[in-house]
Amino acid sequence: MRFTKMHGAGNDYVYVDCFTENLDSVDLSELSRKIAHRHFGVGGDGLILIRPSEIADAKMQMLNADGSESEMCGNGVRCVAKYVFDHGISTNAQMKIETGAGVLDLSLHLGDDGKTESVTVDMGEPTLEAALIPTKMVLNGPVVDHQVKFGGHAFTATCVSMGNPHCVLFVPKASNELVLGLGPTIESDPRFPNRTNVEFVEVISADEVRQRTWERGSGETWACGTGASAVCVAGVLTGRTNRRITNHLLGGDLVLEWDDSNNHVMMTGGATEVFSGDWNE
Amino acid sequence: MRFTKMHGAGNDYVYVDCFTENLDSVDLSELSRKIAHRHFGVGGDGLILIRPSEIADAKMQMLNADGSESEMCGNGVRCVAKYVFDHGISTNAQMKIETGAGVLDLSLHLGDDGKTESVTVDMGEPTLEAALIPTKMVLNGPVVDHQVKFGGHAFTATCVSMGNPHCVLFVPKASNELVLGLGPTIESDPRFPNRTNVEFVEVISADEVRQRTWERGSGETWACGTGASAVCVAGVLTGRTNRRITNHLLGGDLVLEWDDSNNHVMMTGGATEVFSGDWNE
Repeated sequence: MRFTKMHGAGNDYVYVDCFTENLDSVDLSELSRKIAHRHFGVGGDGLILIRPSEIADAKMQMLNADGSESEMCGNGVRCVAKYVFDHGISTNAQMKIETGAGVLDLSLHLGDDGKTESVTVDMGEPTLEAALIPTKMVLNGPVVDHQVKFGGHAFTATCVSMGNPHCVLFVPKASNELVLGLGPTIESDPRFPNRTNVEFVEVISADEVRQRTWERGSGETWACGTGASAVCVAGVLTGRTNRRITNHLLGGDLVLEWDDSNNHVMMTGGATEVFSGDWNE
Repeated sequence: MRFTKMHGAGNDYVYVDCFTENLDSVDLSELSRKIAHRHFGVGGDGLILIRPSEIADAKMQMLNADGSESEMCGNGVRCVAKYVFDHGISTNAQMKIETGAGVLDLSLHLGDDGKTESVTVDMGEPTLEAALIPTKMVLNGPVVDHQVKFGGHAFTATCVSMGNPHCVLFVPKASNELVLGLGPTIESDPRFPNRTNVEFVEVISADEVRQRTWERGSGETWACGTGASAVCVAGVLTGRTNRRITNHLLGGDLVLEWDDSNNHVMMTGGATEVFSGDWNE
């Protein structure tokens, strides 16, 4: 089976082109666990299958490294779009990709070599109503710069759902003590009934922030597209940043814009093809 | 550049066949840092070049993931031998591989398909004299079941050098508390002037142990060939195990034998070719 390793902001997956490869008789959960293992397999955050779609240029099917299925990944879908365009599956630089979270609109930005350099993804509208995020931090309405303590440490928290819950904490310094020390405590705080992702954010200027991410169920990760989008929204809601920001994550930069014309968050970031190989198991 | 990913007991490297690839003009330190990166590159514990040798079947040149050079790796050299035999570079099932720690003798054990299944490596003689390991735990002579405290916790320590220093601690349970909690403390204890590797070992029977390894400079690792050899020697010296044992490491099993005819430790373990690919940078 031929595969391609790609990453978006360090969020790396093993991609299989199911326009040419037939995986009909394969246990996908087992394949993902094996191929994503970083010592015994190819290694990655999971496995993404690029499949034909009847309603879009292609369909993305995503499995985590533990074999479970996921609906969508903002860094992964940029790589899918790059693959589909660069390998001639579609010639549309304005592309639609079908995901478990619906059909997404993407815009590809091409380099001088005609290959995809970066991709803008429409991440949809944020949800701000506490009960829908969900968080019990307030009874109703949005949670914006809400004074709160986690593990005895005082924060002002802003909560945003981008399809999954985020607790955004603006801090002077996104230290290991906070991210690794308090991340797991906040993730499982009873005020988040479905647990939460946690973003620790340093504001560099009104146009620029630095983010470290504690992902629900994964620990600290190199990049989180929904988290970066939530940070953009939280920065605007709290008056700290403009509607368009550059967000420096561990694995690279993302540009976010919360469009006031349609309330959607647009995320732009790189997509890199690292290598291709043959998996024989 | 064509590469092959292989692992021995989960200790995984990116291998490049320099019988066919020419890396003369390549900055190897930079290549290793890039290609061994687990999110942005192929991913591995480092890069191993399989080169022609004037005095052996092949020569192994080894770089760590941080770009530094290493002399030898017992799990890596088994994979080199498998590659050299399975790809027809040598037809010798009794093979010599040149390493930074001298020329090693290896015996290949073949499966029904004529490919290498496991490899026995002559790991050489242990060094037991305290000053040569080096450890300051005693003034002179060997350190065998020496009563000692690390971080307030009492152990009996046995120290062995297999070219690098090892502190072997037999414990009822090789817990996270010990390995992750005390490993770094013991590694940097002032009684080890060059720091030390630390093995936490549960004795299952006189023929079988379970080992977790805290590697100097790397933290916990999936397997450590010199550490497994040191554990075999320590088990015999303290009367806990026979001269031949099976050692269960996180990444797989190794069979060790401390040969009383020549004082050498023989290590046998698997070697697995996982996939091959093309690296374009």
